[in-house]
Amino acid sequence: MNPEPSSRAVELLDRVRAFIAAEITPVEERYHAEVSALRTGGGNPWEPLRLLDELRAKARAAGLWNLFLPAEHAGDYAERFGTSGGLGLTNVEYAPIAEETGRSELAPYVFNCNAPDTGNMEVLLRYGTAEQRERWLEPLLAGSIQSAFAMTEPGVASSDATNMAATAVNDGDDIVINGRKWWTTGIGHPRCEVLIFMGVSDPLAPRRSRHTMVLVPRNAPGVHVERLLPAMGRYDEPFGHGEVSFTDVRVPATNVLLGPGRAFEIAQGRLGPGRVHHCMRLIGLAEMALELACRRGSERTAFGKPLVELGGNKERIAKARIAIDTARLLVLNAAWKLDTVGPGGSLGEVSQIKAHVPGVVQEVVDFAMQIHGGGGLSDDFPLAGAWSLARQLRLADGPDEVHLGVISRLELAKYV
Amino acid sequence: MNPEPSSRAVELLDRVRAFIAAEITPVEERYHAEVSALRTGGGNPWEPLRLLDELRAKARAAGLWNLFLPAEHAGDYAERFGTSGGLGLTNVEYAPIAEETGRSELAPYVFNCNAPDTGNMEVLLRYGTAEQRERWLEPLLAGSIQSAFAMTEPGVASSDATNMAATAVNDGDDIVINGRKWWTTGIGHPRCEVLIFMGVSDPLAPRRSRHTMVLVPRNAPGVHVERLLPAMGRYDEPFGHGEVSFTDVRVPATNVLLGPGRAFEIAQGRLGPGRVHHCMRLIGLAEMALELACRRGSERTAFGKPLVELGGNKERIAKARIAIDTARLLVLNAAWKLDTVGPGGSLGEVSQIKAHVPGVVQEVVDFAMQIHGGGGLSDDFPLAGAWSLARQLRLADGPDEVHLGVISRLELAKYV
Amino acid sequence: MNPEPSSRAVELLDRVRAFIAAEITPVEERYHAEVSALRTGGGNPWEPLRLLDELRAKARAAGLWNLFLPAEHAGDYAERFGTSGGLGLTNVEYAPIAEETGRSELAPYVFNCNAPDTGNMEVLLRYGTAEQRERWLEPLLAGSIQSAFAMTEPGVASSDATNMAATAVNDGDDIVINGRKWWTTGIGHPRCEVLIFMGVSDPLAPRRSRHTMVLVPRNAPGVHVERLLPAMGRYDEPFGHGEVSFTDVRVPATNVLLGPGRAFEIAQGRLGPGRVHHCMRLIGLAEMALELACRRGSERTAFGKPLVELGGNKERIAKARIAIDTARLLVLNAAWKLDTVGPGGSLGEVSQIKAHVPGVVQEVVDFAMQIHGGGGLSDDFPLAGAWSLARQLRLADGPDEVHLGVISRLELAKYV
Amino acid sequence: MNPEPSSRAVELLDRVRAFIAAEITPVEERYHAEVSALRTGGGNPWEPLRLLDELRAKARAAGLWNLFLPAEHAGDYAERFGTSGGLGLTNVEYAPIAEETGRSELAPYVFNCNAPDTGNMEVLLRYGTAEQRERWLEPLLAGSIQSAFAMTEPGVASSDATNMAATAVNDGDDIVINGRKWWTTGIGHPRCEVLIFMGVSDPLAPRRSRHTMVLVPRNAPGVHVERLLPAMGRYDEPFGHGEVSFTDVRVPATNVLLGPGRAFEIAQGRLGPGRVHHCMRLIGLAEMALELACRRGSERTAFGKPLVELGGNKERIAKARIAIDTARLLVLNAAWKLDTVGPGGSLGEVSQIKAHVPGVVQEVVDFAMQIHGGGGLSDDFPLAGAWSLARQLRLADGPDEVHLGVISRLELAKYV
Repeated sequence: MNPEPSSRAVELLDRVRAFIAAEITPVEERYHAEVSALRTGGGNPWEPLRLLDELRAKARAAGLWNLFLPAEHAGDYAERFGTSGGLGLTNVEYAPIAEETGRSELAPYVFNCNAPDTGNMEVLLRYGTAEQRERWLEPLLAGSIQSAFAMTEPGVASSDATNMAATAVNDGDDIVINGRKWWTTGIGHPRCEVLIFMGVSDPLAPRRSRHTMVLVPRNAPGVHVERLLPAMGRYDEPFGHGEVSFTDVRVPATNVLLGPGRAFEIAQGRLGPGRVHHCMRLIGLAEMALELACRRGSERTAFGKPLVELGGNKERIAKARIAIDTARLLVLNAAWKLDTVGPGGSLGEVSQIKAHVPGVVQEVVDFAMQIHGGGGLSDDFPLAGAWSLARQLRLADGPDEVHLGVISRLELAKYV
Repeated sequence: MNPEPSSRAVELLDRVRAFIAAEITPVEERYHAEVSALRTGGGNPWEPLRLLDELRAKARAAGLWNLFLPAEHAGDYAERFGTSGGLGLTNVEYAPIAEETGRSELAPYVFNCNAPDTGNMEVLLRYGTAEQRERWLEPLLAGSIQSAFAMTEPGVASSDATNMAATAVNDGDDIVINGRKWWTTGIGHPRCEVLIFMGVSDPLAPRRSRHTMVLVPRNAPGVHVERLLPAMGRYDEPFGHGEVSFTDVRVPATNVLLGPGRAFEIAQGRLGPGRVHHCMRLIGLAEMALELACRRGSERTAFGKPLVELGGNKERIAKARIAIDTARLLVLNAAWKLDTVGPGGSLGEVSQIKAHVPGVVQEVVDFAMQIHGGGGLSDDFPLAGAWSLARQLRLADGPDEVHLGVISRLELAKYV
Repeated sequence: MNPEPSSRAVELLDRVRAFIAAEITPVEERYHAEVSALRTGGGNPWEPLRLLDELRAKARAAGLWNLFLPAEHAGDYAERFGTSGGLGLTNVEYAPIAEETGRSELAPYVFNCNAPDTGNMEVLLRYGTAEQRERWLEPLLAGSIQSAFAMTEPGVASSDATNMAATAVNDGDDIVINGRKWWTTGIGHPRCEVLIFMGVSDPLAPRRSRHTMVLVPRNAPGVHVERLLPAMGRYDEPFGHGEVSFTDVRVPATNVLLGPGRAFEIAQGRLGPGRVHHCMRLIGLAEMALELACRRGSERTAFGKPLVELGGNKERIAKARIAIDTARLLVLNAAWKLDTVGPGGSLGEVSQIKAHVPGVVQEVVDFAMQIHGGGGLSDDFPLAGAWSLARQLRLADGPDEVHLGVISRLELAKYV
Repeated sequence: MNPEPSSRAVELLDRVRAFIAAEITPVEERYHAEVSALRTGGGNPWEPLRLLDELRAKARAAGLWNLFLPAEHAGDYAERFGTSGGLGLTNVEYAPIAEETGRSELAPYVFNCNAPDTGNMEVLLRYGTAEQRERWLEPLLAGSIQSAFAMTEPGVASSDATNMAATAVNDGDDIVINGRKWWTTGIGHPRCEVLIFMGVSDPLAPRRSRHTMVLVPRNAPGVHVERLLPAMGRYDEPFGHGEVSFTDVRVPATNVLLGPGRAFEIAQGRLGPGRVHHCMRLIGLAEMALELACRRGSERTAFGKPLVELGGNKERIAKARIAIDTARLLVLNAAWKLDTVGPGGSLGEVSQIKAHVPGVVQEVVDFAMQIHGGGGLSDDFPLAGAWSLARQLRLADGPDEVHLGVISRLELAKYV
């Protein structure tokens, strides 16, 4: 057992932390105020503020760009696309960095390390053809375009991916796509240019070989964003969650990823590290919330005492500290497992963090909101937004219940 | 022990239920869609749709109007302002009706039974002078104006009301008001014409005699709505929660309620029944959420089974049923105590429901959201809004922790 | 809603409370010390101390005897067997009395109101023939004999009663009994003279008509107590929980209760009120634990403050108060339902209390133990014993999970 | 991050596991049956069965003896007293071994690695004089005597150690000891020959320099075991928990440990690793309970399905797996911290595990009991005993609440 990060991770982490402190934190409040003004003032909150592009340019210039690039698959992309030191990181090395960026709503995007783009870039890295990588991966790594991921459907319980009704059927040299997706995150971004779409290609194939993933240009005829969905009342601009209809959308068969019927294979490879990244960032979110709770609770007084001295507040602080530290260790453990045996052998570990961490973080943030009183529910603090994110992640990439099902299946299998 | 409602309450309840089914439910979805379109389309979501006014007129015509009027204080207002049968109801009689209206986001306002107006009307009923009642209570009962309640402040921990910094100071025949309030609910309504304001009038008086409540016209010079606050991302139009500054606002001393220094006395009288009403409506909200959970969970399938057959879902349904039924019994018990011994003797019972019910309802709604998957977080179902309301009520009218403090104080006092 | 007890219940309750205070409380500590000395000193802790018989004689003389007798079925037994006023009580009337007796480990037995005898007496009252009542019910009501109930089996999951393997088969004018039971509570009592045994009589009959209940004399040839079982380390003398083998035990067919194949019918009638009684007594147990927690927490100091002022203790006290009051209201509600519509229509209400109350009480007692430090785990306080009882009742008469299953089934049936 | 054990730990762990499987598991059931027969049959359950001594001899012969010996302080004791390889282990190396032994109630004692002897031996190793080590440590390491630890007192809240009332006062060349202790674990063992006693020596010294630890021979005049205390109904033979009076007990001043007034210094050094060992063993206990739950839940059926398929059982299995894995990682993290910076710098980490792990394990065991039905409460399975142990450890070595207090203090200090 050695829970310490590598010296390389420490060095990068220091630089990330310094960049956030110097560049992001000072403007974060202003950023939110401007977006909020656009939102309630009839402006367009979807066009990302120039501020964000400036910060992204600075981050890239500082070599703090695409830090998520996995050591194993980074190839020469790390060098070509500005990543510090020209090398990818292991999941364990990336963990503390992802945590640090997770403290801020803006930082993941500033460092080009935000979902769903990182997951989509990983798919292209691992499974994309040279042509696909050139056309889509490189501009994503460069930060000149964004992407979306279209899997969940409104008409069925998507916790069971085999319920999927949308289709991606071969027709000569083309794939023809039909169906309706929702919670297509990223589709609201004005620079979103590509979607990874998953649909049924062969309903008679074995259960886990029926589906195909296809790269679909955002502007392909027949792709229509029906609406943008609020998540717990928030539209999460500039990314957004879309309900998207696909009507006879036709793309060349060369847009298929990995091969027909291999979507589940990709999903597993994509979702493993993606779930780890989400959980790492959530740990940062919880740390931020706990810090705010401690500060507010120490500064404000009621009944003649600082809030932290009242009722069970101190115990809640202690329990939040334990919850965060255990959650972090569990995420590091899953990252280490992914690094050492890959996604296939890490199923249980990844399901554990996905089933455990968002709920834990939701609780910590809820406590922080409570100690902030009315302020905690407002947008004067990043808490209400943090709560919404943690809550979404109890459903996104598989609801808690599905992951608990995986874990119990593995556990019971030990004794058969 | 007899948990049954009176026959009068049953009769009214049937009529309320029939009205909601016939008039409100059929238009509720459309209502929300129109407000949402205004919100995201740059329109004005604050002007209540004509639809609402039409529903209110129908409700009044049906004698389902101001049902909250308390038997004890209703006087001839019940007869004059359209309330069914011309009599007020006890808290116990009103309980199942409030629960029924709580299932719908619109119903409380349609029946002129919504917070904060009901609480403000009760204050005027119990403590208002004839002149105050004529000027403010009658138009409120008639539904031609709305009101707001200004107590919580952004600069201090308002869970301790004695922290309050805003002032309401005598100056000859006037009261001069200064300070800043937030979470002034109702202030966003275009027909809001009066606020009940609470401020320090005599800082040297005994702790609970320092504060005064004053009726302040919305358009009094010096009253300025600085902004409307989102609560968990929602503005709760058309009522809204305002941050309001008061700068040398001058009103006649006849606007004082009950008398200088008597604000805490009023607060207790206002908040007792108000908390019961809130909790009653929350029970209805939880029932609605559980119904949706059962329906969705029975209709949708995953892994070859209805969702309710998967994992611990059935146990969660059973626990939700127990949670709702115990919460309802606790609320009825507090209502009965209020009816029989009044607010002064019901402190513990009222604190119990306020500390217990919102949290319980939040949990039930959270489960219902989870079983709806992504849909549960969207606004396609009334769940995300319900969650937000329950969460607000863990802070509004005193955070859970303050109420737990009251309960433990009473408990320990038994053994001293 | 009127949660108040009837004046008759209040009067009886006052007398019960006075009797406990005058007669039981003063000797309770000595009683436990003597039993404990027998237990660890190689004596026989199973022979009830003379003290208990003296208390029982006093209780009967005071007319505080067999208070459980249900109004509906009491007939002239109430008058003949010393019950106060010569009348039975409704479940609602009995509730506060059962609660009061539940505060003390001895009181239920002193008043001849202890499980499993009360349940067995109810079965005889409701379903017994005149002959059966004369032979078994009368001495039980007189307190001269005790009884046991043999249903659960070691070899199968007895949460599903249809799993039962023991048999009770007709053979001419006899019934022949074979099988093995455990958790046969009451069998350790030296005056135990009769068991109610449940077994399969017709394996080909419809699922719920296969079983028969039979009265089996304790000393019938072939009845053998294999061992007495500790429950969480305690043998619960003088009642005890036995593992009992039945080998070709032959009793006359007139010992059958109600009729062959009608065991489930009896079980439902027996277990409804029995579960209510258990839960009522548990409420008293929780009240006792909370009182001890408040007293100990106020008297003992650490870090310069009474324990109740430390950490979250006050919040735990408040939550215990809420938990107890909600549990009591739920139990009263089930009692009221039983009184008004009988066991058949009260299935959901009875399952609610059985699934909810023991767990709640276990939590309250656990907190009380914790605030007592090491003392709480010892037998210097009645807490460790109380915990064990509450824990047993999460399994006895159907585990929590089975009751949750009943509740969810009823809930989902509303929407089919 | 690398959660893997060292190869040396793996090798030892394999040997420990093999020894337990070959020697302990086959006799464990018989052992418990014999003790139980002595307990209920009027025999003496305190005289450890010869079986235990035989197992201990075998373990020592196998070099699986005193494995707890810390690398840092083992000196030549490891070589002299049979420890494998002649070297001590780090806390991280010892962790998986302690976990493995924790699965069995007998194993810790068989390997001479049981509390309180390990803690007492560590004190002697770290702070004992050569003479003290020769007289007491060597026979303890040899397994020829046992020891006890006398700190907690019945008369005060011992969660605050400065409450302590017992005294250890200098009188010439002697120390005179007076007072009353309880929960003096180990005192019931017939070979217990020495106690480490803590008492006030200088009430006027600074708060944490008032107390002294002294080695007191069990047979010193004035040492009297008033009684043995049951913990949740169990006496935990052959160790036992004693209430012990000390009346003018006189021992030479050379029996003082480390020096007068330095008891807190020792306590911290003793309790750090001691708490880690306790928690490690508890992890093993939880693994054992989860294994039993999975096996029983797969074998037994109800309502036509294996128990694990019913209700929320699978989710509970999954959550138990997460709870155990997070708890283990947290314990390893504390062990690593102790190894790298020592007890002084590990205060927070050690308090985290002490506040978190026993409660988590208690929950897992409670679930395992529940799925075993009545059997789970009996002594037919090691679950009821395991529950009792976990529950004790929520109080022993500082109640949860005190540790939460330490954690919150450290957390809040970050922001002052």
